Amino acid sequence: MKNFYISKSRRVRSTPFTSRIEKQGVKNYTVYNHMLLPTTFSSVEEEYIHLKKDVQVWDVSVQREIEISGVDAHKLVQLMTCRDLSKSKIGNCYYVPLVDSNGGMINDPLIYKLKDDLWRVCIADSDVLLFAKGIAAGKNLKVNIFEANIDTLAIQGPKSFKLMEEVFGTVINNLKFFKYDFFTFKDNKYLISRTGFSKQGGYEVHLEDIKSGQALYDHFFNIGKKYNLKPGAPNHAERIEGGLLSYGNDMLIEDNPFECGFERYIHLDTGVDFLGKENLIRIKAKGIKKKLMGVKIETNKLNLTDIHLLNKDNEIIGDLRSAAYSPEFKKIVGIAMIKTKYFDNKQNFKMIINGKYIDGKICELPIT
Amino acid sequence: MKNFYISKSRRVRSTPFTSRIEKQGVKNYTVYNHMLLPTTFSSVEEEYIHLKKDVQVWDVSVQREIEISGVDAHKLVQLMTCRDLSKSKIGNCYYVPLVDSNGGMINDPLIYKLKDDLWRVCIADSDVLLFAKGIAAGKNLKVNIFEANIDTLAIQGPKSFKLMEEVFGTVINNLKFFKYDFFTFKDNKYLISRTGFSKQGGYEVHLEDIKSGQALYDHFFNIGKKYNLKPGAPNHAERIEGGLLSYGNDMLIEDNPFECGFERYIHLDTGVDFLGKENLIRIKAKGIKKKLMGVKIETNKLNLTDIHLLNKDNEIIGDLRSAAYSPEFKKIVGIAMIKTKYFDNKQNFKMIINGKYIDGKICELPIT
Repeated sequence: MKNFYISKSRRVRSTPFTSRIEKQGVKNYTVYNHMLLPTTFSSVEEEYIHLKKDVQVWDVSVQREIEISGVDAHKLVQLMTCRDLSKSKIGNCYYVPLVDSNGGMINDPLIYKLKDDLWRVCIADSDVLLFAKGIAAGKNLKVNIFEANIDTLAIQGPKSFKLMEEVFGTVINNLKFFKYDFFTFKDNKYLISRTGFSKQGGYEVHLEDIKSGQALYDHFFNIGKKYNLKPGAPNHAERIEGGLLSYGNDMLIEDNPFECGFERYIHLDTGVDFLGKENLIRIKAKGIKKKLMGVKIETNKLNLTDIHLLNKDNEIIGDLRSAAYSPEFKKIVGIAMIKTKYFDNKQNFKMIINGKYIDGKICELPIT
Repeated sequence: MKNFYISKSRRVRSTPFTSRIEKQGVKNYTVYNHMLLPTTFSSVEEEYIHLKKDVQVWDVSVQREIEISGVDAHKLVQLMTCRDLSKSKIGNCYYVPLVDSNGGMINDPLIYKLKDDLWRVCIADSDVLLFAKGIAAGKNLKVNIFEANIDTLAIQGPKSFKLMEEVFGTVINNLKFFKYDFFTFKDNKYLISRTGFSKQGGYEVHLEDIKSGQALYDHFFNIGKKYNLKPGAPNHAERIEGGLLSYGNDMLIEDNPFECGFERYIHLDTGVDFLGKENLIRIKAKGIKKKLMGVKIETNKLNLTDIHLLNKDNEIIGDLRSAAYSPEFKKIVGIAMIKTKYFDNKQNFKMIINGKYIDGKICELPIT
């Protein structure tokens, strides 16, 4: 595939770390939430191997945080998701499908409950701010909604624990998976969660102050050599294998949360009020016709920018949503939306890549 | 400035013309409404000169069209904008500021009224779909809202009229500025508007069928040589000089429509109901403190990806939102948000570029 340059502008915002990662040799960007997201420093394959072995710092400032506060904050957050948040606790992070009135997926954020009347919605790539503002205006809710000036660094990989311990002390080891708390470095307090878009373990540091955020970034790299720390980015092959979904790639507004495998986050019987509830009840009763599954494809190169259909016996059985070369499986791994007729069996399929039929196989997510 | 590659994925959608423009030598992309927007084929300067002299076809499929239909369609469209649409006519295009409850800008689309209960909102770079869905859900409106499968080609430049006449016949000459109608080429009917993001004249063809759209694209280039037709893209220098604003560059949610110079589209006294009306009344009574103006800057290179402040006598008088080298003025032209204390005078200012003080001057928009 030919390479093309990215045109920068103010509309495609830089982050507080852009100048640093450019000095560190970033090669590629994508755009996510109207902001630059670095994607490659060396190659996806090299970074995959490094991520599973050592530790990386990722500039994921693109994970914009929509702050919702005020007496109706809980009500508004609940209206946007089918996951029951009535028993939600301060200090917890909640992965939630956001759905529209039809029950279609509009985002899959992590929600941080800071107080009963103060929430942060840490979003995937769609303007949840405008959705929240629309609902609030329509229902006359007493809320304040804005995109917070927060930039996020993800510290990911097996050595992230030792690196973070050196910076924030052993107290950080008490932080459990999908919890957040406040930790101190050089008199600055940071909100840190044990989260991140990889399966290799680690943290996300939510930075409200640019100067101390940049100082922390530099400190990581000052002390990082002994952990073989490198700058990195969410790794498609690793996250596909791990079954971590990417909104806009794997799922869109045309897909409902049942089809995306989110059954455990769909609470239709607990009495909470949210958009699309009636339609999700109807969808559940009727049963779904397609579902996201893993796939393995017998090739080592696939540039996925368009629709790729999967075929079996002259029938279309699904379409490929994400794909990347896995150094572990030595073939392409992917996520595909598969017709229900086929998703409960480990089916083989064929697909056309560059005019040739290539073999593939459906598998579970995560891919093992 | 160093160049970086763009990473493609399904999340950053290609258009039906992507493979064609890549064969035609596109060099740069940006991302706009989660889709690829070509930005340069040769250089902004060369394309500026060509656009003002000949004719270009632009792949502006990124101008996504949000279709709103149903008995409450007019009501919903009106709720989103401060421009009174009560006397709007089928066949007209309406440039409208969309505002949130605070009166902040969230988009500046062109709205096409197709029927009383069928509208298309042709959007700038923010998810108006989600805003519309939120309001509709909050107010229980009877509407159907979705992103239409429409891709747009803009035919821009002084020779666009002759080119379009050759394709669609002399009947196209009857189409007036900011009107749309249906025209036929090879048995296919196309919705065409006399609109476009340049001041050089031309049309936008709204394509609902990919195959006939691609055939039309190829036909343009088959016959285009005598008009010196070239592929192109919205040209920053040309649009800045013309005073055409870019959402995300020149204005954001922190700016209100008065500050963006949209007074003639703010109807506070006509009795129509829209979001943010009370706040816009309050803002008008208090008076604004900043306003978008043109600027000329005495240099020939300025990469605008960050905040650039304008100074006068040790005071910050505004910030630069867009900038490009103008082959006509032989200097940088730009759009800046200027404090009201300074905007009614043709003030000089200084700004720091690469550590040096550079002189600039405030001027009206369009820049002449």
